[in-house]
Amino acid sequence: MGLIVQKYGGSSLANAGKIRAVARRIAGVREAGNRVVAVVSAMGNATDELIALASQVSDAPTPREMDLLLSSGEVVSCTLTAMALRSLGCDAIALTGLQAGIQTDTLHGRARIERVEAGRVLRELEAGRVVVVAGFQGFTEEMDVTTLGRGGSDTSAVALAAALKAERCEVYTDVEGIYTADPRLVPDARKLDEVTYEEMLELAAYGAKMHPRSIELASVHGIPIYVASSFGGERGTLIHGDIPMMESRVKVTGVTHDRNVAKITLRGVPDRPGIAAALFEPLSEVGISVDTIVQNTSLNRFTDLSFTVSRADLRDAVERVRSVAGEMGAGEIATDQSLSKVSIVGVGMLNAPGYAAGMFRAMADASINIDMITTSEIRITCIIAESRVEDAVRALHKTFHLQEP
Amino acid sequence: MGLIVQKYGGSSLANAGKIRAVARRIAGVREAGNRVVAVVSAMGNATDELIALASQVSDAPTPREMDLLLSSGEVVSCTLTAMALRSLGCDAIALTGLQAGIQTDTLHGRARIERVEAGRVLRELEAGRVVVVAGFQGFTEEMDVTTLGRGGSDTSAVALAAALKAERCEVYTDVEGIYTADPRLVPDARKLDEVTYEEMLELAAYGAKMHPRSIELASVHGIPIYVASSFGGERGTLIHGDIPMMESRVKVTGVTHDRNVAKITLRGVPDRPGIAAALFEPLSEVGISVDTIVQNTSLNRFTDLSFTVSRADLRDAVERVRSVAGEMGAGEIATDQSLSKVSIVGVGMLNAPGYAAGMFRAMADASINIDMITTSEIRITCIIAESRVEDAVRALHKTFHLQEP
Repeated sequence: MGLIVQKYGGSSLANAGKIRAVARRIAGVREAGNRVVAVVSAMGNATDELIALASQVSDAPTPREMDLLLSSGEVVSCTLTAMALRSLGCDAIALTGLQAGIQTDTLHGRARIERVEAGRVLRELEAGRVVVVAGFQGFTEEMDVTTLGRGGSDTSAVALAAALKAERCEVYTDVEGIYTADPRLVPDARKLDEVTYEEMLELAAYGAKMHPRSIELASVHGIPIYVASSFGGERGTLIHGDIPMMESRVKVTGVTHDRNVAKITLRGVPDRPGIAAALFEPLSEVGISVDTIVQNTSLNRFTDLSFTVSRADLRDAVERVRSVAGEMGAGEIATDQSLSKVSIVGVGMLNAPGYAAGMFRAMADASINIDMITTSEIRITCIIAESRVEDAVRALHKTFHLQEP
Repeated sequence: MGLIVQKYGGSSLANAGKIRAVARRIAGVREAGNRVVAVVSAMGNATDELIALASQVSDAPTPREMDLLLSSGEVVSCTLTAMALRSLGCDAIALTGLQAGIQTDTLHGRARIERVEAGRVLRELEAGRVVVVAGFQGFTEEMDVTTLGRGGSDTSAVALAAALKAERCEVYTDVEGIYTADPRLVPDARKLDEVTYEEMLELAAYGAKMHPRSIELASVHGIPIYVASSFGGERGTLIHGDIPMMESRVKVTGVTHDRNVAKITLRGVPDRPGIAAALFEPLSEVGISVDTIVQNTSLNRFTDLSFTVSRADLRDAVERVRSVAGEMGAGEIATDQSLSKVSIVGVGMLNAPGYAAGMFRAMADASINIDMITTSEIRITCIIAESRVEDAVRALHKTFHLQEP
């Protein structure tokens, strides 16, 4: 009997009717002879409602209490899903993150899974039950409840799949798979049948619907992820590592964008060894992810250093940078929240000539100014004005003929 | 520094504004130099909303999942209360029943507290924090979440007060204390300054606002309970064991009633030893409380046996009784849900003549038929038609002059 881990997002569980529909789908998979672990997010906008409640009693809720508060959302949805399964005659049990053995570090609000003690989950599976697990949450050594950050339910699902050595992890959401670009911006965006983990990492990090941590985790453990809609019966996208004939593939897989970009520029940084470490270590210590980093060529032994963070992290990041900048004798700090990111993604792209040039030409033809450029093995990214991001995505999708299979 | 355990009911926490008001009250007690543990119920009608959600996905939700679902209500209120305290500059931490060490048996929906592992609570108190505990919930050896049944938050509070050897347990609710009768039925009902545990046990069991389990627990551990309104500043009622000059007290303390009465009558029961045990043991095994029991004088070696249970337990109770009745060769089973209970309560009452007679005369004068009668050391109870319960309460309140101090 195969073991499948499924994850259902909040929009798939927005009300009692949708929860019953999800239960029918799970029961069908069980009846087909599989063992099933279902990881669920909070119902619809339950999480946002809890955040709104917290803001009514406190200007600055403590992260520990915020985690405990938010964790209740997934507890509600997992119990209701288990109840709905039982009422279909499908034996099921609901487990919290703690009961499912999802142990994390103590970084509240963005905790990382340290290990999964899957004993209880395995016992319940062996007893013939569908196990419904509250996603997005774990617990610390001191039995405090943590949350894994937005999109953390995906990570819960993949971590459980890895711990249980599941056949695959299926992620059901309100989109039908991974597209060549955001279909809301590009009407002829095409759904991809399969992508590599590496491509998905770039696609997820730059605006698509899966949390990059879950992709990394799946990649490390070799767990295939199938992303599909929980509503329609349309074929989704399989994310895995075994795509054949890599060399013959079209090089650009998709165009992604991200509006959640804030840039910090530190001027007059002394150009000497250890400066970058001194600047970025304090940020990583408090869990702020730094994205694009650009350091200009040194001028008179002083340089300018720019980097981007998510807008939510901007205030904290500036605070940290300010204290470090004083110590290192750097100059002023400038910030810009009017930027966005647009990228083309594709395996092997950087080893084939012409893609970067093609991207820059498309931007130039659309009169879009490029603020920063970075590249990775499978991605070329431009930071541009947020006001031009839609034009950029459409121009790139057309330039690389992504509407054609 | 004194240690006070406070309990706030759902109506005191119905919205963010009320939660902030409760936080101000707690912070005041803390500033006055006390250490404080606050036990909270779910916000307003949060529990009812969760029950409604469950009924939308299942006709017969499993008790284990129901407990987990309902427990989320108190998790929300305890985190919000802790946040509100912090925003007042009062250091506070929210703990779930599990984190507060409230261990129970596995009887979901009506679990009993087996012990309180108060280590974490004590550490947080020593760190100078107000500890806000989710009431109504505990956990089993297997880390499953249980609930203590309706009114269980009172029990959580008293159990914590006992485990922490608190000075006293304060229960804040939407009434201002314990009255001589339900003020909605009797306009001149009088608030009592103090009652004994024993009197309160009867008052609570027969319709007043505290769960009898919590009174029993407080009595066993000698924890004084102060019941008062969380809204007004009026003096409440102190429940304790040290009331002086017991002999000189007025004998009838209050009149109580309970509409939640269902009667089961088993006819043609063989009159031989062991019959009552055979009948009531199966009920106690599934946690059904049997209240009034009346057995008629034997006629031809067969007797009729009547007893009352809460209406919610009627179906289960009849089912159990039916299977036992067959084995013992008893006759038909009759049920009646149109009854209520009315009682007069007072220490020493049964040793003083005239109270029972006075009660029956008052009922007769009001033309109220009495279905069953039972008595205890401090209580005389009549089972009557539900349609006459209000008349009965008013008549008894007047007969015993309870409006006069």
